[in-house]
Formats: sequence, structure tokens, C-alpha cells
Amino acid sequence: MKKLINAPEAVLSDALAGIAAAHPSLRVDAEARIITRAGGPSAGKVALVSGGGSGHEPLHGGFVGTGMLHAACPGEVFTSPVPDQVVAAARAVDGGAGVLLVVKNYTGDVLNFEMAAELAGDEGIEVATVLVDDDVAVQDSTWTAGRRGTGATVFVEKIAGALAEQGASLAEVAEVGRRVNAASRSFAVALSPCTTPAAGKPGFELADDEMEVGVGIHGEPGRSREKLEPASAIVATALDAIFADQPLAAGDEAIVMVNGLGGTPLIELYIAYAEVAKYFAERDVRIVRNLVGDYVTSLEMAGVMLTVCKADEQLLSLWDAPVNTPALRWGL
Amino acid sequence: MKKLINAPEAVLSDALAGIAAAHPSLRVDAEARIITRAGGPSAGKVALVSGGGSGHEPLHGGFVGTGMLHAACPGEVFTSPVPDQVVAAARAVDGGAGVLLVVKNYTGDVLNFEMAAELAGDEGIEVATVLVDDDVAVQDSTWTAGRRGTGATVFVEKIAGALAEQGASLAEVAEVGRRVNAASRSFAVALSPCTTPAAGKPGFELADDEMEVGVGIHGEPGRSREKLEPASAIVATALDAIFADQPLAAGDEAIVMVNGLGGTPLIELYIAYAEVAKYFAERDVRIVRNLVGDYVTSLEMAGVMLTVCKADEQLLSLWDAPVNTPALRWGL
Repeated sequence: MKKLINAPEAVLSDALAGIAAAHPSLRVDAEARIITRAGGPSAGKVALVSGGGSGHEPLHGGFVGTGMLHAACPGEVFTSPVPDQVVAAARAVDGGAGVLLVVKNYTGDVLNFEMAAELAGDEGIEVATVLVDDDVAVQDSTWTAGRRGTGATVFVEKIAGALAEQGASLAEVAEVGRRVNAASRSFAVALSPCTTPAAGKPGFELADDEMEVGVGIHGEPGRSREKLEPASAIVATALDAIFADQPLAAGDEAIVMVNGLGGTPLIELYIAYAEVAKYFAERDVRIVRNLVGDYVTSLEMAGVMLTVCKADEQLLSLWDAPVNTPALRWGL
Repeated sequence: MKKLINAPEAVLSDALAGIAAAHPSLRVDAEARIITRAGGPSAGKVALVSGGGSGHEPLHGGFVGTGMLHAACPGEVFTSPVPDQVVAAARAVDGGAGVLLVVKNYTGDVLNFEMAAELAGDEGIEVATVLVDDDVAVQDSTWTAGRRGTGATVFVEKIAGALAEQGASLAEVAEVGRRVNAASRSFAVALSPCTTPAAGKPGFELADDEMEVGVGIHGEPGRSREKLEPASAIVATALDAIFADQPLAAGDEAIVMVNGLGGTPLIELYIAYAEVAKYFAERDVRIVRNLVGDYVTSLEMAGVMLTVCKADEQLLSLWDAPVNTPALRWGL
């Protein structure tokens, strides 16, 4: 295992120190292990709190800022944050209008955020939850009952965060978050595995000519192990799965993310995006906004995730609303 | 070799198609192989043109936009663009105030940009050149006479681009570009090699416990092959080399980039940044601005490059000026 770290057990605390030093717009509470906006709570506005295992950066800390999250709770690498972290975050950012928890559907996350929601409720904080489960690759997985939550998390956090910024109620913000999740689908393919610092060896093995089709963001198995194919075929496999699950008709509009899993050069993500654009054009579905880059990663895994959100006027308008975070920034 | 591509010979054209599809703010001329701002030339303003081999994305195409480059000329992977590309770019973006070529110091780039400067001059376009040679690792290299040009390219393009946007003359924009280069130093360490699509095998070999200290962005050899060390020691080695070459005194201010080489997880770059921040704090040198992420990559190489620019009031003010490109965006 070759990693740019000091020690496996120091990865999270060292990374939090780096995030704190790099981003004056964020405040990092090293003890509580939460990342919040430096400006504190927004009085009268709903606050979005998300979190999950580390190793998926910039998710979630990189999405804390105006127009998106109020707080992120990073667990150890590929390990859920504990309920105390989430409660501390909710307490730190509640502006009196309630807290929306954005939770990726993994068994550990679901349990810990549920417990946190109860504890925060006991403290008088109004809490709602949006569960993200957009990954169409497998119905259940080694880490999940039901579908895994992956790329749509970025869309949910951006769009619900924009509505919260506009002063909508907790029920409205939660509703739009659920609507984004329902409109979104993801599918990922891995060309190489990744290694957690604690394990010290790859989470799975792939032969020199193989890829994992439908892989999860912790390296969980997907649908099948296949021979490596050209980018055009990989993109078609992923989009066929997505369109089979959520048909998009001619004339529909979509927001599309071509997301690198951490070890894929940007030039390859652009090659994938060219194939995505062709696929959509052939079906007369219009990509109205896109992201190409590393947004939800799996440490140094090589591969690509495609996420498609069927857009409408409200979702698009909220997508375009100003955002100012380390990893997404426009309009401000 | 496992890559998300269609074919080695199609990498550049496919990637250009993806860039064109993804970024409405850019115009891609697939035949001339140049990327320009969609808005066309800026009348009366100096235009910045850069370029170099592909495989370093987002450099240079990702830095085309308001406040930075007017055009980028991508060569094949790790191969200089040809003079015709550069001339076509200069012609496409000249707004009558001249064109500044930002050239990284590699033998092929230097020759081809020199020839392009002559040809553009013959067409009546006023041309000046800034040569970037910030990498302190080696004096000459397998690819270079003199020092290699690496991370400082981002600083030169941002700061000179901001001055051009303000309407300064070609001489003034070139002068500030040279001043940024003179104030900047870089040093990189590789934990893994990278593979060009055409070669199909890694450019060099590293044992499981080794790192290349002072590596170039094409995998050129650095100063030494060493046993892998903790992030703190890797950062100290790089910064010791930088500070030995350009001493920064207590009270000085600097812009610092912790740049991933393409295959390094963002969480590790933050760990490196925490070490950088400690190193600077111990010397009472203030990091006034920073970038943490992938800006000048070497395909999927794992490793980190540190770039330090000694700041002053003018450079900092130009750094803060609005920029709107795919890879750098603020203030707009």
C-alpha cells in the first residue's frame, strides 16, 4: 500500500486539519469531527446536514457552504459517522427552522442517522431526513438493504440546499430533496480497486483485462465482472441500465454528472462525457447542465460513475442558484 | 493498460469532443485542435495563449475563460502542440493588443512556440512569450534544457490573465507573467508511474515501497529514488528544496498549491496541505491563498506537487480578480 499519509489511524484527523487550514470559509471542530460553515447558523433557514464515511472527497465536506450544506459529519474511511457527530452538527447549525439530514442508503449510515434524528428531536431540534438510493446497479448489496446511495447525493445537496437558502420550510426542502432522489439514477464501473488505509490491501481484485460493472463506492461488487471494453461500450452499459430504470423520452431534459472515482485522469472523464453526449443526442434527450470531474470518489479507484437527474423547471432553477463551496462554486 | 478510452489514437479527438460538449463557455475547433473562449476575441485586450502535451488536464483547456486564457493548444498526450496549432490560436483570439504565449520549459514546446511566434509575427500579430521554469528538482532533465515548467503555469496564467482582462499592454502582461514565474518554485514526488495510451506500459517502474523524489510531470526522473516516507517527511523534502532555492522569510506571504498528479485521492492532498500549513507556520510565512486539488496532472500518476509563489500586493490583487473557467472560478 502506497499512500500519502502519516499513519492509517491519523488519516481522518490529519485530513480535517488540512481542510481547516485550506478553507477559511469552513469551520472544523476536530473534537466533534464536524465541518460547518464559518459563518455559523443561518437564522430562520433550514440547515442541511450530511455525512458518511470518509474516502469519498469532496463529498461531503467539500459541499459545505452557501447554497448547499450547513454541516458535514465525516466518519473514518468507509465507516459511518457516529450519532453523536450528527447530533453535534445539527445542534451547531440549527437556525430555528429545522435540520434536514441527507443520508446515503448504507445500513450503518441509516442506523446512525436515525438514532441521531431521535436524539436531536429530544433536544427540540426539528429534523427531517432524505434517504438517497439512486444506484440502479444492484437491488441489495453487501452494505445495503435496498439500493445504494451514490452520485445523486450531490444533486440532492445542491438543489435542496438552494431551496433552504431561499427560506423554504423544512417540509418543502425535504420534499424537493426526495423529488431529486426520485428523479435520479446512477451506475458506476471500476477499472481498478481501492485500498483503505486500515486494511492495507485492495478491497477486491481485478485482472489486468477486467472491469467491475455496477461497482459500489466502497468497492462492493456490482452486477458482473467483465472484460474491459472501450469507453463507448462502458458508457452505453451504464446508461442502458439507467434508462431501463428511469426512461427518459425525446424532449426530456437532464442534469448529468460524469464522476471520476478518484484515480481516473480528467482526460478520460471527458472522453466518457463525449460518449454520454452522443448517447443522449441519439435519444433526443437534452443535457441541460453537467458536471465532469471528481465529486463522489472511492479513494484512488479508477473508474467512472454516471448520474442522471431528470430535470424540470424548479429543479433546474435551484441547480442554477448561487453556490459557494470548496468543490462547487457558481453565481457568487 | 486499463484506460477509459476508445482507442489510443483517438484520445485527443475524443477528449476534445467531450470538452466541447461539456462546456458551452468554450469553443473547440476540432480540426485546428484549439480551445478558445466561446465569446471570441476581446477587442483591445491582450490575449493569453498556452498549450502543451495533453494528459495534464485541467491544464490548459480547463483554464480558458474570462480572467485567464483566451486559448489552449493541446498536443497529443505528453507531446508538444505543433506550431500551426499555436498560430491558429493566436489568430483566433488576437483582439489587436497582442498575444502572450505562456510556454512550459520543455524542449519541444519551446521550439514549437518559438516557431509559432515567428509565424504569427509574420501575419502581423504582436507576440510576447513567458517561459515557465519553476521546478527546482533538477537543473536539466531528459525533456529540458534548464528547469522544467510545472505548477507555476497555473499561477502565471491566472495572474497575467487577470492583468490582461484589466486592459494592460502586452509588455505589462508579459512582465507580470515573468515576475510570477520568478517568484514561484515547484517540487513533486511520485508514488506511482503513469502510462501513456500510445506506449501502453508505465513510463518508469517503482517498487512497492519506493517513491520518485523530484519527479517531472511526464514521469521524468527526479533527484532520487527513495523508500516511501510519511506525508510529513515528503512535504518537508519538497518544501526544503523550494525554500533552499527561494528563501521565504518570517513575515513573507505566499500563494501555495497542493496539486494532485491525477491518481491521488483528495483526502491525501488535504493531509499534505495540513503538513504544508505546519511547515509555513513554523517559519512564520503566511499562506494567504491556496489551491488543493488536481490542476496540473500526469495522467493517473499518484503523487503530489507543491508550488509556492511569493506574493506581493499586486500579485495577490490579480490572483483575487474574477475568473471563470471550467477549473478555476471565483468572483463572477
